[in-house]
Amino acid sequence: MRVLGVDPGLTRCGLGVVDGGIGRSVSCVAVDVVRTPADAELSARLLHVSECVEEWLDSYRPQAVAVERVFSQHNVRTVMGTAQVGGVVALSAARRGLPVVFHTPSEVKAAVTGSGRADKAQVTGMVTKLLKLAAKPSPADAADALALAICHLWREPMRARVAEAEARAAELARKHKARLAAATRAGHTGTGTTGGGR
Amino acid sequence: MRVLGVDPGLTRCGLGVVDGGIGRSVSCVAVDVVRTPADAELSARLLHVSECVEEWLDSYRPQAVAVERVFSQHNVRTVMGTAQVGGVVALSAARRGLPVVFHTPSEVKAAVTGSGRADKAQVTGMVTKLLKLAAKPSPADAADALALAICHLWREPMRARVAEAEARAAELARKHKARLAAATRAGHTGTGTTGGGR
Repeated sequence: MRVLGVDPGLTRCGLGVVDGGIGRSVSCVAVDVVRTPADAELSARLLHVSECVEEWLDSYRPQAVAVERVFSQHNVRTVMGTAQVGGVVALSAARRGLPVVFHTPSEVKAAVTGSGRADKAQVTGMVTKLLKLAAKPSPADAADALALAICHLWREPMRARVAEAEARAAELARKHKARLAAATRAGHTGTGTTGGGR
Repeated sequence: MRVLGVDPGLTRCGLGVVDGGIGRSVSCVAVDVVRTPADAELSARLLHVSECVEEWLDSYRPQAVAVERVFSQHNVRTVMGTAQVGGVVALSAARRGLPVVFHTPSEVKAAVTGSGRADKAQVTGMVTKLLKLAAKPSPADAADALALAICHLWREPMRARVAEAEARAAELARKHKARLAAATRAGHTGTGTTGGGR
């Protein structure tokens, strides 16, 4: 499975494509950072990021897109720009019918380093090691994009199994309720009462 | 001039097209609210809103798009979705080469009612009156979208004049600096010194 990881941002947007192999083996297909000038119009910046992401989707043909889920704990202005870029990226993927999953920074850190509180250097170090890269990806946004893709490759099978189990449980509950309702109706019909059944 | 106002949101996204006439006269061309189901995938919801906005841009051919600028004072989850929709709308406009301007809620309220602290009912009342509508636009998101378009029509000429004045001032400052630099160089050349000039 091939995943495009995106660390959304207006100033720097990290893009990383990772292939997942047997077990937990992963390999880096491409990594880069899209930059847009801070003095450009917001809509022009979004358009530039969107065009680059669409180029990557067309060139590398990933089967899923993993985007960092933003929280508003930081600078409001930056967070809004980041959310807007995330929205634009999700849109490009949806246009191609690709699944988009948002992962929180701590999910990504935990998946890659084993700790949800790892710092940037630890994440970059583990990404470099896991992907057997000759040099550390730089800037941090590039490493984060690769980490997102790895996180998605490793978490997705579990996430899919959980979703399947939940769907099965909901279906069983639905059938059980239907049987109960049928039994209630049958009971009422059998005794000839008509007032209580609905 | 025709403006599309957008009150961004995932659950309800208000769209309003307003024509500006002579002086401050305004007329309503179209107004509606796009809804997406809360249980759908985020990317599918963004795609639906994006497709509706693109349809409106193609049908009504506005010359500018005015979007509400979001602040993160409210529920984080809602604000992120709102910012993502705003980004997607700005992208659709940028794809068509249309200018996109973000207005804050208080700018919109001040433009339409005269007070930046007006409540929803006052905004809806003034929008209904200004556009001579037979009935109040409902829900509030529809009225807000129309208010955004009116705000843009009335603020834009002033904003453009300010931007022009600032550009002229910057150009004068640039010329002044260039003249100063030329005079400094001439001074150095004239006296035969070579060490100080750069």
